[in-house]
Amino acid sequence: MTHFGYFNGTVLPADQIGVGVTDLSLLRGYGLFDYFLTYNGRPFQWDWYWERFANSAMCMHLPLPITKEEGYQIVMDLIERSGQPDVALRFVMTGGYAPDSITIRKPNLLIMSEDIHPTAPQQYADGIRVILDEYVREMAEVKSTDYKRLILLADEIRAAGAQDVLFCKDGEISELSRSNFFIVKGEKLITPDRHILRGITRRTVIQLARTDFEVEERPVLLSELYDADEAFTTSSTKKVLPIVQVGDLTIADSKPGPKSAWLLSQFNELVTRW
Amino acid sequence: MTHFGYFNGTVLPADQIGVGVTDLSLLRGYGLFDYFLTYNGRPFQWDWYWERFANSAMCMHLPLPITKEEGYQIVMDLIERSGQPDVALRFVMTGGYAPDSITIRKPNLLIMSEDIHPTAPQQYADGIRVILDEYVREMAEVKSTDYKRLILLADEIRAAGAQDVLFCKDGEISELSRSNFFIVKGEKLITPDRHILRGITRRTVIQLARTDFEVEERPVLLSELYDADEAFTTSSTKKVLPIVQVGDLTIADSKPGPKSAWLLSQFNELVTRW
Repeated sequence: MTHFGYFNGTVLPADQIGVGVTDLSLLRGYGLFDYFLTYNGRPFQWDWYWERFANSAMCMHLPLPITKEEGYQIVMDLIERSGQPDVALRFVMTGGYAPDSITIRKPNLLIMSEDIHPTAPQQYADGIRVILDEYVREMAEVKSTDYKRLILLADEIRAAGAQDVLFCKDGEISELSRSNFFIVKGEKLITPDRHILRGITRRTVIQLARTDFEVEERPVLLSELYDADEAFTTSSTKKVLPIVQVGDLTIADSKPGPKSAWLLSQFNELVTRW
Repeated sequence: MTHFGYFNGTVLPADQIGVGVTDLSLLRGYGLFDYFLTYNGRPFQWDWYWERFANSAMCMHLPLPITKEEGYQIVMDLIERSGQPDVALRFVMTGGYAPDSITIRKPNLLIMSEDIHPTAPQQYADGIRVILDEYVREMAEVKSTDYKRLILLADEIRAAGAQDVLFCKDGEISELSRSNFFIVKGEKLITPDRHILRGITRRTVIQLARTDFEVEERPVLLSELYDADEAFTTSSTKKVLPIVQVGDLTIADSKPGPKSAWLLSQFNELVTRW
């Protein structure tokens, strides 16, 4: 199957799109993105994703070159061209072409469909391990393209037999490299509320959880992991994925817990009906 | 005049080069660069620039796809094709194409010539103003493409009638957005030695200064500006450029000082003979 991409008004097979060499993401790392899946051929939580994309653009002083309605039309067109029942969609917006290599004039906007890379069933069955890293993302609330830290840590994560990294600065937990973090304690569902990207799956899970949990969105300390019943991470591709080890610390009995499983089943039910 | 670029082994007019949409600088901000000028048609301080480029690549876990000698041949070819007596050269290396949008496989290397944008003579005559920003660059010693902070501050710099920003974190000065920082006190030339990019012009100026100054490379506090005789910044295009105001603070009598002028003349003499 060929994926197509929209780039500044033109739609082409994605592998035929070329970004020019004065683009500010290439020269200066100046870009933002967003990413979501479709279910039953429809973009999941489109309103929330568009809202976040527009907010990231505003925070990075980039005017949106298209309206929400135009964005939706482009997305539906790309889904149809992909010939696949469900795809991932990636929005990438950069500072645009800068002949002086530094000044924003007009952003470049790329929207493309991609294959979905679902999380392996074994990871849900076993839970994942994460390493700890003393770090907090700059401008974490903006979905910028700044992922240097994760790529630099790739070898360390692999060497530890882990799947990801949990960022923690001065004893306070923020998020994983590309997903949010939750702990369960009794009837409480607790998740950090600052220095994080406000994940759409996080938001969906909080909404689903309200019937059965007391939800606390607040700063979360690393020390709170010691008596957590369960921990999990959320993202569009991970959904609700149990975490059984953080650094040297085993969470509960190092097996995925029932409350994470229940939230995952609620999430799966929602997307099946989407 | 047309500038040419080398991209992964192929040389084309720079405006005909297209970078594919799975490049990790576009998707994840994962890139590094270097930049230097030629004088009398020859790359200035080539050995030092290559050494820094190779070090940045190593720090970002990217294997160099060419040798130093090949790099030199490419540079000399691009200079000749430009048809100009002197040009700027930009090296950009990214994490390469990542079909999974995150894993490094093979870097992309771009080398291109550009017009030189010399600093206006009036700026040397008047000196420049900079705003202060509570910030320190991540991995400052690596010439990564992470310049989000500067681009976000562009409006604030303009509104303040300033030309650049000086980064200062917890009372300690590091560097300007794209150049190093020096102060003069009596016979002492003082410059920060940590949280900085180790500028080649900085290194050249320190070398030139040793005959007439006692050079101190060490942490520099913001409070030391209050009794500085002079301040200036160094970069390949700024050379030795006086700073007469930092935030609300006027340096000495707000006029460029004689020692900055002497160092600039020494620098100009060196490059004229290059």
